[in-house]
Amino acid sequence: MIAISAFETIAEDLAQVEQKMRQSMVTPNKALSDVLACLLSSGGKRLRPALALLASRLGQAETGKALSLAGAVELLHTATLVHDDLIDNSLLRRGRVTLNAQWSSGATVLAGDLIFAQSASMAAETQNVRVIAIFAQTLVTICQGELSQLFSVPWRQQTKEDYYRRIYAKTASLFAAATEMGGILAGLPEIQVQALREYGRTLGMAFQIIDDVLDFVGDEGKIGKPVGGDLRQGIVTLPAMIYLCQAPQDEGVVDVLDRRGNQDGALTELVARIVESGAIQASYAEAEEFVRQGKDALLSLPAHPARAAMLEMADYVTARRT
Amino acid sequence: MIAISAFETIAEDLAQVEQKMRQSMVTPNKALSDVLACLLSSGGKRLRPALALLASRLGQAETGKALSLAGAVELLHTATLVHDDLIDNSLLRRGRVTLNAQWSSGATVLAGDLIFAQSASMAAETQNVRVIAIFAQTLVTICQGELSQLFSVPWRQQTKEDYYRRIYAKTASLFAAATEMGGILAGLPEIQVQALREYGRTLGMAFQIIDDVLDFVGDEGKIGKPVGGDLRQGIVTLPAMIYLCQAPQDEGVVDVLDRRGNQDGALTELVARIVESGAIQASYAEAEEFVRQGKDALLSLPAHPARAAMLEMADYVTARRT
Repeated sequence: MIAISAFETIAEDLAQVEQKMRQSMVTPNKALSDVLACLLSSGGKRLRPALALLASRLGQAETGKALSLAGAVELLHTATLVHDDLIDNSLLRRGRVTLNAQWSSGATVLAGDLIFAQSASMAAETQNVRVIAIFAQTLVTICQGELSQLFSVPWRQQTKEDYYRRIYAKTASLFAAATEMGGILAGLPEIQVQALREYGRTLGMAFQIIDDVLDFVGDEGKIGKPVGGDLRQGIVTLPAMIYLCQAPQDEGVVDVLDRRGNQDGALTELVARIVESGAIQASYAEAEEFVRQGKDALLSLPAHPARAAMLEMADYVTARRT
Repeated sequence: MIAISAFETIAEDLAQVEQKMRQSMVTPNKALSDVLACLLSSGGKRLRPALALLASRLGQAETGKALSLAGAVELLHTATLVHDDLIDNSLLRRGRVTLNAQWSSGATVLAGDLIFAQSASMAAETQNVRVIAIFAQTLVTICQGELSQLFSVPWRQQTKEDYYRRIYAKTASLFAAATEMGGILAGLPEIQVQALREYGRTLGMAFQIIDDVLDFVGDEGKIGKPVGGDLRQGIVTLPAMIYLCQAPQDEGVVDVLDRRGNQDGALTELVARIVESGAIQASYAEAEEFVRQGKDALLSLPAHPARAAMLEMADYVTARRT
């Protein structure tokens, strides 16, 4: 969790969400339950459940249902991380050893499936058919996005639109759904629900851009993984895309992305060139533009302490450095 | 699909379910969509959607919602098969090459996730909160069952109760949910819904026992995989359990299950001893007892053509030889 005042207003609710999630990881087998509980306790900022809770406070949501929604959203996120780390063969996340680094891939697949199942079950607790449908459709969007990436065009042909489509599916779709579903549970008028969705979407886009920027300039100790990881995996994110437009002739990019020659040395040098090129600042500017749009959308809603907290969270997203 | 007359009454509905499932596999990427469509067309008997459709006909279910339920149930089943085959490293299913035999494990994990997501989305189309909650909880049961197996006690300590718990989670829970959810959509009185659930559960138990029997006596060409596969994976099913009670001193069992010595030869001989021991007939008898219970439960419902079709399906389950 992060220490911004927006979180203070929902600290008690978030603590209850934590407890709900932990309870959902209890299985008849104690050893299994312990590993699953440990997986949840590895933290993360709980941004998504915080957004769902804040949006639900803008109207008359039943507290129990808002907690279920928040838990469902965070469990869905957790499940996708478990499978992503397995697929990418990542051994560390948030500075801690991943599940796939300790377990067989089979057990990791099943653990992710179980967390998906518990997230769907928690979403059903909202007893709101529209919320449940959005929840399921968001999971479809996330999975289609991940799969499309495996079938995607070569990096040379990828456009900024491809990048935005990708980060929408991967990240912004769940942010958008979290605030939209919170607004639905709150019983808000449709125009406000859609404004909340737009706020969530733009926040998610900004969040993922910053995540991608931190892959170049982050503190390895704090982000818990080495820099340049995306390029190492052949993934071109916004900073690299902006740099490529400026310096299409840079052969180092080809060396790294097409895995030619001494990649480790080439990678370190390429990261340095991208960082020095101004592509990082340009990426921040794009993230800030998304945040500005999101705050605009939010300002169409009536003033409310939860709205103030959400405006504050928007600023946090582009300010974060880990 | 199988050629029993119970299926004729719902043939048109089942054809629409097929179409719904195929449509749900369409993604923005054509190559990906083709593989997913191919995965669905690999057949299977469509028993689960047939049960859901028949149960929904016992009352006043809206056709569209019954079709969504049936599609959701079969997609959920398909998704679990995709992940199971990956985990077991199975290269064939129903005589066809599995997805994991063609794709990277990462792509296979994501394909299974996408099918889970589409199944949840189709379940949401029923717009029935109770149905959706049962659906999600069934997925929890299936995943917990699979995971528990990885954390289970050594084969020597496994009891028949462990076996029954396992096949309930793996198979019978979804059969039970299919008929229960059909009954709920039909708007039947609660006592009938529970009778339908019991019918589905017992049918599922019998179905899995027969599946496990066919792993010993099935026609390899028809079941699409070599016999003795469970023992080869160290899994003790009902026929082996019954045999072990009769012949606890058989060292060949230890050779196979603890992977000592020449396993291939030992496996072939052990399968032959189990088949000759009467354990197969005893297993059939247990399956038939489940079917008898299921038909009893069903007979508490008023006479109806769909009920007649379900009674017929019960007999089919123990009669099947592939």
